[in-house]
This record gives sequence, C-alpha cells and structure tokens, in this order.
Amino acid sequence: MDSPPATPRTTVRRLAARGRYDRETIHGILDEALVCHVGFVVDGQPYVIPTIHARVGDTLYLHGSTVNRMLTTLREGVAACVTVTIVDGLVMARSAFHHSMNYRSVVVLATAREVGDPEERRQALEAIVEHVAPGRAKDARPPSEKELRATLVLALPLDEASAKVRTGPPVDDEEDYALPCWAGVIPLTLTAGPPVDDPRLAAGIAPRPELVAYRRRPAGA
Amino acid sequence: MDSPPATPRTTVRRLAARGRYDRETIHGILDEALVCHVGFVVDGQPYVIPTIHARVGDTLYLHGSTVNRMLTTLREGVAACVTVTIVDGLVMARSAFHHSMNYRSVVVLATAREVGDPEERRQALEAIVEHVAPGRAKDARPPSEKELRATLVLALPLDEASAKVRTGPPVDDEEDYALPCWAGVIPLTLTAGPPVDDPRLAAGIAPRPELVAYRRRPAGA
Repeated sequence: MDSPPATPRTTVRRLAARGRYDRETIHGILDEALVCHVGFVVDGQPYVIPTIHARVGDTLYLHGSTVNRMLTTLREGVAACVTVTIVDGLVMARSAFHHSMNYRSVVVLATAREVGDPEERRQALEAIVEHVAPGRAKDARPPSEKELRATLVLALPLDEASAKVRTGPPVDDEEDYALPCWAGVIPLTLTAGPPVDDPRLAAGIAPRPELVAYRRRPAGA
Repeated sequence: MDSPPATPRTTVRRLAARGRYDRETIHGILDEALVCHVGFVVDGQPYVIPTIHARVGDTLYLHGSTVNRMLTTLREGVAACVTVTIVDGLVMARSAFHHSMNYRSVVVLATAREVGDPEERRQALEAIVEHVAPGRAKDARPPSEKELRATLVLALPLDEASAKVRTGPPVDDEEDYALPCWAGVIPLTLTAGPPVDDPRLAAGIAPRPELVAYRRRPAGA
C-alpha cells in the first residue's frame, strides 16, 4: 500500500524512532481504538471532546446530533485534530525517570466536510455501528428518515496522519540495571465482561456470540 | 466539599442531564483515568496529544522533556484543554440510532504555569509515578539532578472543569422494545495481565503485590 508522505506537521519529533507513517499501521490503530478525541478551536480556546469514529478506506467518519457544537464547528471547515490512543502496558523501569508506557497513537490533522449524499451517509453510519460491534448493524433497526435528519455526518480525509508506537521492555541507564528493583511491563487491555441484559429485554433473546466474546483487537492480530 | 461553579464554557450543553460539576466526581475520574489528551493551538491548528497526568488537590500536573513541543507551548500560558475519558461499556439499543456508550469524561480548561519550586517539582513527579502505579515512587530510583534539569513540570488549576457521565441500560423508543433484538450493555474495563519481567531482570526480584493485582479503579470504588 502506498502511504501519504509525512508532512512537517505530522512528523514525529520527540522520540522520532517511534514515528510510523505507513497506512497499514495507521489504519490498524484507528480501527482498534474504540473512541477518539477531537480537537477544535472556538474563540481561541481549544476543546478536546471524546467521540466514536469509524474508518472507511482513507476517510474517517464522525457523527452526532445536528446541534452538537463540536460537529457544527467542524462543519465550517475549521482546522481539526483527531487523536486515538491505545494503551498497551505500563513500562516499569528501575529509575522513576525511565518509566514509560507502551502505546499506539494516531494523530490526524484535517478539515471536515459534511456528508450530504444519502448513500455515503448510510454507509458511514453503518460503519460507525460496525466499528463498535461487528455484525450489530444487521441486528439493530436501521435509522428512520427522522433520525437521519437529526444526524450530522462528517468526513475527514486521512491525508495528514502519523502514528507513534512504543513497545518492549524498559530501557534503563546502564548503571541502574544492578539496582534491586523489579522492572518490566504490566500489560493492559480493554476487556469486555459478560453482556448485561437490558432489564426490559424480552424472554428468549440472547446476544450474538461476537458480543459474548467481545474484544477490540481483530482476531489474528 | 465546595466545588468551583460551572462556567458558560464548561457547562454541558448536549444531553445536559449527563453533566456533573462536583469536585468528588471530577477528581475521581481524573484519578482513575490513566492518560489524558491535551489540546493546544499552534498557528491556528489544534493538536491533541496523549500524556500522563496526576492530580494533587485542585491542581493537575503534566511533565515531560524540556524540548517537548506540547509542554513548551503550554508553558507560554496559552489556552489549553485537558480531557480524560473512561469507557465503561457499550450500550446496545434495539435501534442503531440509540446505541451509545457508558463513559465518564472530564474536560479541564486552563492555562498552565511552569513549576519552578524544587519541592513542588519533586512532589509533582512523585505524584505522576504514583498515579500510574501506587507505591512505585518508593521502589524506583528517584530522579537525579541531571534528570530533573531535563524535565519540564507544568501545573494547571482545576478551576474550570466539568464531567460528563452516562450509566445504565439503553433507552429505546417505546415501539422498539417489541423488536426481537438483543439489547443491553457490554461492560468494558482496562485490565492488567500478569507482569512481564524485563529480560535483564536479576534473579530473585519479584514485582510488589500491587503490580501483580494491578487495577485502575481504587479499591472499594
């Protein structure tokens, strides 16, 4: 896969060896991350708001109410930043200074366009449901015309994006390896518990197996 | 506990019933969240960068390298936004439209001050280590003078902050409750696996019990 070149704004400067610019890495992190954090500016004040996203090809979709301030601000074509972060582990070094985290993050700089085409809107909303729970778009009642009219869908191109990844054990100063201090990694994952039935669930309806065995990382990854 | 009043900028407008402004809720979410996302503006472009934080009283501390662009930008006293988000579950409604998430988030608007006082710097850095892993500041080698000189510590007051919280089952349109679609909540938690020893760990050093039983939510919560 060809990947868009890194720009000066997306080139990882701090700890540059952690920077990744290939499409496969960026897409994989965006797809695994459940939520993103969207940055935008109103009257000089930055705001950072969590929301759900979905990727389709080289496009990132956001959605929400037509009166959502984040979305109505982004719709004006202002500069936005969308960041996702997956924490994979706590890196415990022998010195406080070298403590770190294993993580995978992606930063996307873009301006949004409002999605008006009904078919693209439908696909984007389905992608968002499927991003959260694969198979769910088939199970749930699709949006009505009224619900669609109340929903704003924005598309952001993934032309200017970079990933940053840390993996592996701590890296201590050579003289600290002799210290009698445990060092290593505490792995962390977002883990699903057993599905909790809606109190109003009718008798005899079970969740599909994918929900019972829910996990963020795609099988095989 | 008295809590600072919500300001027009931090009053939750969308789904206002989810807004929380009491200090106890805000502090609890900030303390449980492992990382935050920091928003700042450079040349009109917002950036959102993940980092580790720690709260001490009504102050939020950030730290990093003295050449970290996020920190050197914030040090100038520009407007910043720090957001933390804890995802507690996937809310599966009978309609695609009413799907949601259970979450707890906090948005802090503030300008940073650089921490120069050596004692406050020491306490802030210790708080950051303890935020990640309670007890760890005692086990690890404390920062050297050289390491301290390479570290920038910023303090942000928690004067203008709000939380947003969703809990509970899906809320469907009344006519959708008859649909033969499973509905409920998939609980999600950030879960620790068994500690992985550093390949260079000396024989006979075990992780402290708090690391073996690592969890983000404070005991009793």
